Amino acid sequence: MCLGELGWTGSGPPCSLPIFELLNHKTNHMTTTFNDATTQEIDQLMEKSWEAFLAYRTLPLRARAEFMRAIALELEEIRGKVVPVAMEETQLPEGRLQGELNRTIFQLNNYAAAAEHGDWLEARIDTAKPDREPAPKPDLRKMLVPLGPVIVFGASNFPFAYSTAGGDTACAFAAGCPVVIKAHPAHAQTSEIVASAVFAAARKTGMPEGIFAHVHGASFETGKALVMHPRTKAVGFTGSLAGGKALFDMANQRKEPIPVFAEMGSINPVFLLPEKVKQDAEQVARQYAASITQGVGQFCTNPGLIFGLDNEDLDRFSRSLVQALQEVAPAKMLHPGIAKAYAQKRAAALQQPEVQTETLANGTETTEGLPTLASATATAFLNNPVLHQEVFGPYSLLIRCKTMEQMYEAALKTEGQLTCTLMATEGDLQTYPEIFLQAQQICGRVIFNGVPTGVEVCLSMQHGGPYPATTDSRFTSVGADGIKRFARPLCFQGFPDALLPPELQNQNPLGIWRTVDDVLTQAPL
Amino acid sequence: MCLGELGWTGSGPPCSLPIFELLNHKTNHMTTTFNDATTQEIDQLMEKSWEAFLAYRTLPLRARAEFMRAIALELEEIRGKVVPVAMEETQLPEGRLQGELNRTIFQLNNYAAAAEHGDWLEARIDTAKPDREPAPKPDLRKMLVPLGPVIVFGASNFPFAYSTAGGDTACAFAAGCPVVIKAHPAHAQTSEIVASAVFAAARKTGMPEGIFAHVHGASFETGKALVMHPRTKAVGFTGSLAGGKALFDMANQRKEPIPVFAEMGSINPVFLLPEKVKQDAEQVARQYAASITQGVGQFCTNPGLIFGLDNEDLDRFSRSLVQALQEVAPAKMLHPGIAKAYAQKRAAALQQPEVQTETLANGTETTEGLPTLASATATAFLNNPVLHQEVFGPYSLLIRCKTMEQMYEAALKTEGQLTCTLMATEGDLQTYPEIFLQAQQICGRVIFNGVPTGVEVCLSMQHGGPYPATTDSRFTSVGADGIKRFARPLCFQGFPDALLPPELQNQNPLGIWRTVDDVLTQAPL
Repeated sequence: MCLGELGWTGSGPPCSLPIFELLNHKTNHMTTTFNDATTQEIDQLMEKSWEAFLAYRTLPLRARAEFMRAIALELEEIRGKVVPVAMEETQLPEGRLQGELNRTIFQLNNYAAAAEHGDWLEARIDTAKPDREPAPKPDLRKMLVPLGPVIVFGASNFPFAYSTAGGDTACAFAAGCPVVIKAHPAHAQTSEIVASAVFAAARKTGMPEGIFAHVHGASFETGKALVMHPRTKAVGFTGSLAGGKALFDMANQRKEPIPVFAEMGSINPVFLLPEKVKQDAEQVARQYAASITQGVGQFCTNPGLIFGLDNEDLDRFSRSLVQALQEVAPAKMLHPGIAKAYAQKRAAALQQPEVQTETLANGTETTEGLPTLASATATAFLNNPVLHQEVFGPYSLLIRCKTMEQMYEAALKTEGQLTCTLMATEGDLQTYPEIFLQAQQICGRVIFNGVPTGVEVCLSMQHGGPYPATTDSRFTSVGADGIKRFARPLCFQGFPDALLPPELQNQNPLGIWRTVDDVLTQAPL
Repeated sequence: MCLGELGWTGSGPPCSLPIFELLNHKTNHMTTTFNDATTQEIDQLMEKSWEAFLAYRTLPLRARAEFMRAIALELEEIRGKVVPVAMEETQLPEGRLQGELNRTIFQLNNYAAAAEHGDWLEARIDTAKPDREPAPKPDLRKMLVPLGPVIVFGASNFPFAYSTAGGDTACAFAAGCPVVIKAHPAHAQTSEIVASAVFAAARKTGMPEGIFAHVHGASFETGKALVMHPRTKAVGFTGSLAGGKALFDMANQRKEPIPVFAEMGSINPVFLLPEKVKQDAEQVARQYAASITQGVGQFCTNPGLIFGLDNEDLDRFSRSLVQALQEVAPAKMLHPGIAKAYAQKRAAALQQPEVQTETLANGTETTEGLPTLASATATAFLNNPVLHQEVFGPYSLLIRCKTMEQMYEAALKTEGQLTCTLMATEGDLQTYPEIFLQAQQICGRVIFNGVPTGVEVCLSMQHGGPYPATTDSRFTSVGADGIKRFARPLCFQGFPDALLPPELQNQNPLGIWRTVDDVLTQAPL
C-alpha cells in the first residue's frame, strides 16, 4: 500500500519495504517493488472507507454517475502511459489492451447510465389503506441501498476490464459503495496507474476521501486481512477456483458473513450436433480454432470441451480444427506462473489413459501457451474426473460420443459452467431437445451457433453460473445487473414524504420506473 | 417420512418407527408418533424431486399459478380440520391461527399472481447489431430460471404462514422449484394435514409426481441429510440463529455450495426521540405493551430493545408501559422448550449487573411467557454484549441514554436487524438525522411511528436484514420479491425466436414487462 491510497496523492512513490517484485518479461530483471500492506494500514484505510461510505451512500445517483464518467475520462487521459506498461507486465498485445481499455471505459459509462436511470433500484411502493379490515395497511416503500465497502481483487487475465477500474469496481460505485482494490501482483504497475486515474476523478468530482483505496500484497495474508475486516461488506473476485473458494470460505466464517461474488472459471462445453457438423464441419472448426487460441486461451469463456458424435463428419471437423490450430503461432502467456500451470495441467490431461494428443504446437512452454487439441471417448470422459477439470490456456478436449444418449450422459457429468454452446441446426434441436434442456441447467449463458469467447457488456448478459463457475449463480459480473451484487433492499414504513429518499417520494422527482401497488409506472403518485 | 410424501396418498398413516413423539399440551400424553426419514428415503425422494424439477421448470407460468391457487383452495377446505389440531399443537388461540391461515392463503394467491405477471423474471433483451464494428453484436436475451429442489424448514412460531405451505414454499413453487418440507416437530400433525392439501392440489392440477415431499425428523441428522443431498439446490429456513447458522455452514461446505436464506430473528430496536416522548409517552407505551406481548412475544419482529433519553418523559413512558404490561395476562408459549428457553434467557438478562426489573408477571414459567420489562443505562448496554442478545418472548429492555450522542453510540453497537423503529416527530428527525441514517444502516425495514410486529405481505415489504437477522441481506422472505431467492438469470445468445421460451420471444405472447435495449416495455419487438 502506498500513500496515495489513503489520500489524494495519485499513484505515489514505491514504498520502502519490498515484499514482492515485478518481473520484467523482456529483461527478466526485477524492475519495480511494492510492499504488502500491513494490518495497521489496512485497518486505517478500511475505517476511512467506512466514513466515505456514510457520505457516499447519501449522494444523489447523478453524483455517482458523474464520478464514474470522470473515471472514464481519466482512463482516456492515461491511455498512452498505461498501455505500454500493461503490455510489458501482461505480454498481451497492444491491440487487445487498447480494446480492453475501450471496454473498461464503456463499462464505466454504461453502468453510470444504468445507475442514474434507476431501474436497478427495484423501487416499490404500496400505498396505505387506512380503512382496511381487520387492521389499517401502512404506507410501505422499498428500494435497493448499498451494502458498504467492497473489496475488489484484480484479475490477472484482464488488467483493465476486471481489475482496478473494471466491472466490479464500476458496479460497486454505481451501487453506492466505496471500493478497496487488492492489486494483482502480476500487473501491479498497471494497477497503480489506473488507480491514479480513479483518485484524480474522485478529486475532480468532490468524492469523499476514502471512496477508493489501492492495496498491494503478494501474500495471501493481505487479501485475507481485507476480507476479514469488520468494515468490509462484500467481495468481488475473478480468478482461480482455489483462490475464489478460499475467499468465499473466509467470508462465510466471519463473525458477520458477507457476500462474495467469485467468478472462478469454467470449461465451457460445446455440443456439436450431427446435422450441423455434416453441413459445416470445416467452418465450425475454423471458428473454434480462433476461439480456443484467442488471448492465448486465457479467457474464462474459453471452449475447453467439445462433444460430438463419433463419425466421419466429426473426423472432418477434427482434421480441420487440428490444421487451423497448427496455423496459430504460440504466444507468451500473461506471466510465467500461468504458463507453468498450463503446461502442468495440459500434461496431466494428456497423460490420462485413452486421451489422444491430436496436436500440440512446438514452442517454449515455460513462457508460451502452446495450442493443443486432445481427444477421448465419452466412456473415458464419463469415468475419469480429471478430464472434467479446466486447463487454463489454448487447450480443448474433443469428446467422441457413440450415441446422442452418451453425449447427454456426458453433459450431465459436467459441473456448473459460465457458458454452454450448441452448434446445431434448428432441426438438430428439434430432434435432440434434451441437450438444449441440459445445457440450460448447467450454465449461465447458452449460445446457439457461436463461440463462448467474447462477452458483451449489456443488460441481458449473464456472466455467472452454477458452482463452481461462480459462488452464487443468482448474480452476474458483467452488465449493469452486476450492480445488484452490492446492494440490498431497504423498506421505509409510514414515513412522511419529505423524509423519504427522492427515489421513493410521491412526485417521483427522478422520473424512475417504480412498481406502485403492483403496477410498473414512471408516474408520480 | 410417510408414504404420502413420495406419491399421492395424502397424509398417510403414521409410519412404523417412532423416533419422536408429539406432546399433547392439554393431557401431557404422547398422542402421535412419526419416524425420522432414513437416508435411503431421503435419497429416493430427492431423486424424485429432481425429476419433478425437470418437468415443472418447463411448465408455463400459468400452470405454476394454477397449482398455487389450487393449494389455497385446498387450505380453505381443511380449515375446520387443521385449526383445532394447530391449536392443540402450538397453544396459539383460534383467532390468531384463523388469521394466519388467511394470510397463508393470501400469500399463495398473491405470489401466484406475481409469478404469472412475470415482472420478477427480469426479462432483458438486447437486439443484434450485425453491422457493429469491430465485431457484430449477437442477439442476447435473459430471464430468471429456477434453481432446483428447495428444502423448506417449517418454523415453530408460524405453523401455517412460514411452514409447510407458507411463504418459502409459495416462493419456490412460483420460481419453478419443487419443495421438500422438513416439518417442524412441534407441529408435525398440523404439517401433515397441510401437506395433504398440497398433495391434493398437485394431483388436481396435474403437477409432476415429486413436486412436493413432506419429511419428518426430530434429529438434526434429517435436516442435514436434506441440505447436503446433491439434488438440493437451495434452502429456506425461519428459526433460531444457532439453527440457521448451522444450515448455512453446512450448505457452504458442500462440494457444490448452495444458497441458504435463513431468517434468524432480531431484537428490533426502537428509538424513542425526545419530542415524541414528551408529546405521546402514554400512547406510545400502550402501543408497545401490545406489540411486546402480541402472540406471547413469539414474533421475529418483537421489539426487544427500546432506547430513550433518560428524563421525566421517559419515566412517564416507562410507568405507563409497566402498567399496560401488567394488564396483559401471561399465556402459554408454543411449546415447553420455547418457554424454558425464554425463562432462561430472561433470567440471564435480568441477572446482569445494572439491569433493573421494571415488571415481571406472575405465572407458570415452565409453560407460559411472562410479560417482562427490564431497564439499564446506555453505559451498561455499551459494555455488556449479553444485553444485545435476543430474548425470544414477551420481553423488552429499556435503555436509558444520557444524551442523544449516547443513543447514537448504542445504536452503532446493535447488530443486523430485521427492523428498526423511530418513534419521533418530524422535528425530532430534523434535529437528530444521525439516528435515522444509522437505523437505515443496520436493518431491512425502518418504521416511523409504528410497531415492528405485523408484517404486511406486499411487494414493498422487506423481511430480511444484515446478518445475523438473515444470512443474506439481499433477499426477503416476505413479499413476491422472495421468489428471487430461488431463481437465477439465464442468458440465451443467438437463438431463433421459435427456440426461445415464450417470455423472451419477439411477439411477447405473455405480455410481460421486459427491458428491450435498455428500455422497459410490454411491446412486442
